[in-house]
Amino acid sequence: MRDIIKVALAGLGTVGGGVAKALLKQADILSDRTGCKIELVAVSDLNKNRMSELEIPNTVSYFSDCLEMVDKSDADLFIELMGGADGIAYKYCQKVLNAKRHFVTANKAMLAHHGNEIAELSQKFGVLVGYEAAVAGGIPIIKSVREGLVSNRISQVYGILNGTCNYILTVMRETGKAFDEVLAEAQKLGYAEADPSFDIDGVDTAHKTALLGALAFGMPIDFDVLSVEGIRHISALDISFAEEMGYRIKLLGVGRKNDKGVSLNVYPCMIPQTSEIAHVDGVFNAVITEGDFVGHSMFVGRGAGETPTASAVVSDVADIAMGRGLPLLGLPQSKVKPVSIVDLSERVGKYYIRFEVMDKPGVVAEIAGILGAEGVSIASMIQRGESKDHVPLMMILHKSVEARVQAALEKIKKLDFVLQEPCMIRIEEV
Amino acid sequence: MRDIIKVALAGLGTVGGGVAKALLKQADILSDRTGCKIELVAVSDLNKNRMSELEIPNTVSYFSDCLEMVDKSDADLFIELMGGADGIAYKYCQKVLNAKRHFVTANKAMLAHHGNEIAELSQKFGVLVGYEAAVAGGIPIIKSVREGLVSNRISQVYGILNGTCNYILTVMRETGKAFDEVLAEAQKLGYAEADPSFDIDGVDTAHKTALLGALAFGMPIDFDVLSVEGIRHISALDISFAEEMGYRIKLLGVGRKNDKGVSLNVYPCMIPQTSEIAHVDGVFNAVITEGDFVGHSMFVGRGAGETPTASAVVSDVADIAMGRGLPLLGLPQSKVKPVSIVDLSERVGKYYIRFEVMDKPGVVAEIAGILGAEGVSIASMIQRGESKDHVPLMMILHKSVEARVQAALEKIKKLDFVLQEPCMIRIEEV
Repeated sequence: MRDIIKVALAGLGTVGGGVAKALLKQADILSDRTGCKIELVAVSDLNKNRMSELEIPNTVSYFSDCLEMVDKSDADLFIELMGGADGIAYKYCQKVLNAKRHFVTANKAMLAHHGNEIAELSQKFGVLVGYEAAVAGGIPIIKSVREGLVSNRISQVYGILNGTCNYILTVMRETGKAFDEVLAEAQKLGYAEADPSFDIDGVDTAHKTALLGALAFGMPIDFDVLSVEGIRHISALDISFAEEMGYRIKLLGVGRKNDKGVSLNVYPCMIPQTSEIAHVDGVFNAVITEGDFVGHSMFVGRGAGETPTASAVVSDVADIAMGRGLPLLGLPQSKVKPVSIVDLSERVGKYYIRFEVMDKPGVVAEIAGILGAEGVSIASMIQRGESKDHVPLMMILHKSVEARVQAALEKIKKLDFVLQEPCMIRIEEV
Repeated sequence: MRDIIKVALAGLGTVGGGVAKALLKQADILSDRTGCKIELVAVSDLNKNRMSELEIPNTVSYFSDCLEMVDKSDADLFIELMGGADGIAYKYCQKVLNAKRHFVTANKAMLAHHGNEIAELSQKFGVLVGYEAAVAGGIPIIKSVREGLVSNRISQVYGILNGTCNYILTVMRETGKAFDEVLAEAQKLGYAEADPSFDIDGVDTAHKTALLGALAFGMPIDFDVLSVEGIRHISALDISFAEEMGYRIKLLGVGRKNDKGVSLNVYPCMIPQTSEIAHVDGVFNAVITEGDFVGHSMFVGRGAGETPTASAVVSDVADIAMGRGLPLLGLPQSKVKPVSIVDLSERVGKYYIRFEVMDKPGVVAEIAGILGAEGVSIASMIQRGESKDHVPLMMILHKSVEARVQAALEKIKKLDFVLQEPCMIRIEEV
């Protein structure tokens, strides 16, 4: 085991700043616990002022260009906290691995799109890639799945993977406010980006789901197989109706494996208020796994932010310092095998549907008729008279095949008394 | 890294059987994931029939005496699943370590009483000790705290650590039945032992709390510092009153560290229904940690049973197979430092008290007077008229110092109209 590991850090934004703080402030416990001195030797950022803002000593080399840092620094391990699937982060990653240095990142977008190549490079050059911070921030979920559940065949991995969405859905429920209003407030508070689409359209959750699925099911990372739905279409009415029926709405990334193959999807869904995950609120994340030996497990923690993400990044650094690395997907690349993908249209489950309809006779009969013709039956229904000319009509469907539900919705939304795109939310009895 | 690791297993009871199954049934994924063949070469149990019952191949050597197995087997790693703080398990452990072989156990009692010596032996002989299964069964909590939170100073670690107690408390709440009745049912169902005292008097939770505390706070394992309370005194009335007030009753092991030192205790307490841990029901366990970087995290899973415990045992075996061991407490023994212990009498918090009193004038005034004289003030009070001659009187106290509450209770219980030992339950605003 080595006595010292030299670390270079690219990106001194929020998370990068947190990592610098952790390496400096926790140096004593890190050296006690790892038996190895973890020394920050170089940093790169476009803004040199971050050095003094973060009180990084002048003995640490500064670079404005991270690629130059790889060339000039003798660091054993390079951290990447710049973000972005492609561009500079990706170039830096390739350069680090080609230089046979270890690599640690929080970049789920890059891994979701280039993870297989990165795993190959890591194996080819005999260096390690740590990405604990890329999924569910401070929750040690990569470690738990890859190491803690090593003796399990995993059949399910799902969870709340985006704090922004969970915060918005929580506040909508607590206040009864509309999506747009809560989003605007979240932006003011810094819980949502100026351009929030990455979060609220489910893309960020999908990146993490792609990684978790590949890890849990031993398959290559393939972002393109995911069906992705965000939370823009969720109304205050859906949330209050869910509450009334004993459900909560959460955006979940869902990975399942059965005899037919693997399904990986992102969608908001209604989950029973009695389930533990229903009570994971605000910016918290939660991941649930089902293993054949361990059964049901849940992991909850802060999914983002300066210090939780730094905690995860530094745990990777510590593992690498102690020579405790593993292959990226917990398997040699030759054992990572493509799987059949089960399309979301094959899902069998309950559904909640909200129609906005004109308030006139025959509406319910016609909608019910179309559903029935597709073999989809209604479990319960509520119509609320809120406006003279149009009313919301909400129903819960008995267990149905998604393709049939979608086919019915396609027909129903063309009816002249249906005034908006119907809102469909899957019900997960987790 | 080694290509093969030979494993010997002492104890073929429920958990031992699960481990044998895991090593045999999951051999393919274990070898893919660890890059190492994990081979069961020897087992010991008093009952040889367990070999055939568990379909353990005859190529695996059988011993009736585990100590003889250590002498005669060339295994690299010995698993202990016999149980008991002292006796044969402890002799076996010492013999294994002295023979410079790796050791994996699920035995919290032995570690709570002899863990420091075992850590010393492990360090002296350069071998590893795995005990993931000793705390919270299938939850990878040792790994999460020791590795995942490596960059954190931990200020709190607490949780539901005994499935039997959690099952009993859950059923009492769901059915309104009395403790004795639910315990008898749990015994019939195999969720509680014939002699249940180890579980229901909090001893098992205390063993696990001693281990978690030592690990989280970098202190020696010291079972004797724990104050331990079980759940025998919890009545159906306490549970229904808790529910009414927005609380749930859970038996928690609680470790806290502040400037004054460390407190480690086991007691049933009322926690808000809005907290996630309140919804961890039945035989499930949950551990919550607070780290200075990562913040609040929670880990939930099956805390006992054949396959969840086996999952944890085998994760230790896999780590050792890959040469990924760590010191028992995550620190070299020289860095494990005694700490000041903060006595439970110094606790500052809210309290629930139930008195069984004679129904006559002046009772409340006298009790309130004694509390007031100790500087303890009442936040709310309910008296329920259930019987002619005696009634339960329940109160919630404002934040108070435990010593003052205890002093008041000592006086109150001597009053002639107080008919039973008062029931005091701490309220934890977790």
